[in-house]
Amino acid sequence: MSTIEDVAKLAGLSRTTVSRVINNHPYVSATKKKLVHEAMEQLGYVPNSSARSLRIQKTETVAVFIPRVMNPFFSQLIETLEMAAAARNYQLIVCQTQYSAKKELNYLNLLKTKQVDGVILASHENDWELIEPYLQYGPIVLCNEFDNKANVPMIYQDQVYGGYIATMHLIEQGNSLIGYCTGGHYSSVGTAREKGVKQALKEAGLCFEEKFAFRNVYNIEHGRQVFHWIKGMNERPTAIFTGSDEVAAGIISEAKKYRWNIPVDLAVIGFDNQAITEIVEPNITTVHQPVTEMAEKAMEVMYEKINSKDYKTKEIYQFPLKLIVRGSTVSNNLEKCSSIPKSIS
Amino acid sequence: MSTIEDVAKLAGLSRTTVSRVINNHPYVSATKKKLVHEAMEQLGYVPNSSARSLRIQKTETVAVFIPRVMNPFFSQLIETLEMAAAARNYQLIVCQTQYSAKKELNYLNLLKTKQVDGVILASHENDWELIEPYLQYGPIVLCNEFDNKANVPMIYQDQVYGGYIATMHLIEQGNSLIGYCTGGHYSSVGTAREKGVKQALKEAGLCFEEKFAFRNVYNIEHGRQVFHWIKGMNERPTAIFTGSDEVAAGIISEAKKYRWNIPVDLAVIGFDNQAITEIVEPNITTVHQPVTEMAEKAMEVMYEKINSKDYKTKEIYQFPLKLIVRGSTVSNNLEKCSSIPKSIS
Repeated sequence: MSTIEDVAKLAGLSRTTVSRVINNHPYVSATKKKLVHEAMEQLGYVPNSSARSLRIQKTETVAVFIPRVMNPFFSQLIETLEMAAAARNYQLIVCQTQYSAKKELNYLNLLKTKQVDGVILASHENDWELIEPYLQYGPIVLCNEFDNKANVPMIYQDQVYGGYIATMHLIEQGNSLIGYCTGGHYSSVGTAREKGVKQALKEAGLCFEEKFAFRNVYNIEHGRQVFHWIKGMNERPTAIFTGSDEVAAGIISEAKKYRWNIPVDLAVIGFDNQAITEIVEPNITTVHQPVTEMAEKAMEVMYEKINSKDYKTKEIYQFPLKLIVRGSTVSNNLEKCSSIPKSIS
Repeated sequence: MSTIEDVAKLAGLSRTTVSRVINNHPYVSATKKKLVHEAMEQLGYVPNSSARSLRIQKTETVAVFIPRVMNPFFSQLIETLEMAAAARNYQLIVCQTQYSAKKELNYLNLLKTKQVDGVILASHENDWELIEPYLQYGPIVLCNEFDNKANVPMIYQDQVYGGYIATMHLIEQGNSLIGYCTGGHYSSVGTAREKGVKQALKEAGLCFEEKFAFRNVYNIEHGRQVFHWIKGMNERPTAIFTGSDEVAAGIISEAKKYRWNIPVDLAVIGFDNQAITEIVEPNITTVHQPVTEMAEKAMEVMYEKINSKDYKTKEIYQFPLKLIVRGSTVSNNLEKCSSIPKSIS
């Protein structure tokens, strides 16, 4: 990268003269101005002051923090956010925190160093007290998260209800031993869903069995592992809430290798309504999240915040969740096809 | 965000005095200095000069440009790049170009405005002549791309060979009418694979049939559509090179709804060896790309470029591709199970 010294050298002038030209100082001859501008162009030199002025007010860049791009829920969210940003002549950059509180704080410095105008947190790993100070540098909006302590806009879904309707559906299909999976990271999403699962069980007079709870599972491989844990149990759940279409796909795929009949031997419910739910056989019952609508609202609110410069306002936007019933939980011939015992005693 | 005027107001001093304190000007009393620093702290004011100096040399941020995060190949690439960046105390930000040449150029301004130290292009949409000028602002590295005109490091895979081995495998299974899919965007990847497909066909004395070529297809939904196009043909291909595990999954999933026997009625080969290949039944034959190794090398080279400041060096790093044979192309009882005619005449 060229420096002001390179420009001075090429123009055959002093650093001071170059600096004067850049800063539009009076009393510089037209000839010298021309020499400096020609040298700058030839070297492609962008003065730091210009680079800065290009974004002194706005970078027209918004960052979204997500835990993992490999989770299709988040990649779909990014896709829509990017389009919503582009519609407002904004750029979106994506920061992957890998569920790390330290990485999250590092990325938040993008606000402090004015590399971005605002940050959308699609998950957050730190306690709000540690995030809040960054609000002095620019707006932060929660999308797909709810934090009661946060004094910023929150665009989220009622995940308690999501956990509730999914579990209630399994109960209505006659299941009383219900397994549970969760990503298990610091996030309001997992906590809220667990609350909903427990509420449904309680209303049906059933217990949340900690021995049937599988934590820190969030991809296809983990799903395969969950199947083997269940298979190895003396008393097994007859249905499982996975919290993730990927985990559900992994469980079903592995179960079929061992000739388990899904949903007769094990009913499996996913979450997100990703494309994979209609690829796996049987198709996966799941909970649809209105990702597109949520992303659009988040970017709309972010744009408004950047322009109003009023960052500390608690605003709540809640979006609905919807159960989608498919073959992985409902069978037409429940009794006939069962091939393995519900429990080994 | 607070301004220098806010600081002056709170400190009860002039803007000039505040500016002098910030710039360590002599002849400012200790009392005034203290007042200014207290006001700055209270307002969380970061002078632009400080924000700038924090990244005047380096932002310790690298951007990777990908077309779509929703493509699992790219999300896996991002995952590994992010880890490789973190290992070097760098941050990775992701820019999604949506295959848009205009967006790509906009994002390249991140280099010009010094918001990032370097750019990794995991696909590129513009002619190299339009990208090359940005090299004056920082390093650009191609990863997963090859461009003969580019004078920068290129980390890529021999996609000609990838297209060749995949097609040769279909030919060896007895197929002579072979369909072809491609994303169809400006990218060396698609062009190279097509070259390999044509080479294999030529060596076997077969023709590349343009009527069997499906362009601009790259996801599960597109795969379903491709199946319907094939189904509607009078003369149908007996095998298809999809260039994408997602397209392959879509074709297979839809074909099974119509009781086609895969691979007997249609052999399908994917590309990438994504997790979905082992979820779909039959499992998908595919071409494995060493994404992890490639991402690690790209970040290593980028780190070296940032530090050497020598950006214009053509360096070639080629990684191998490998065929993985599964059930979607090879059947044990090819003759017995066929249920639909190979062509309708």
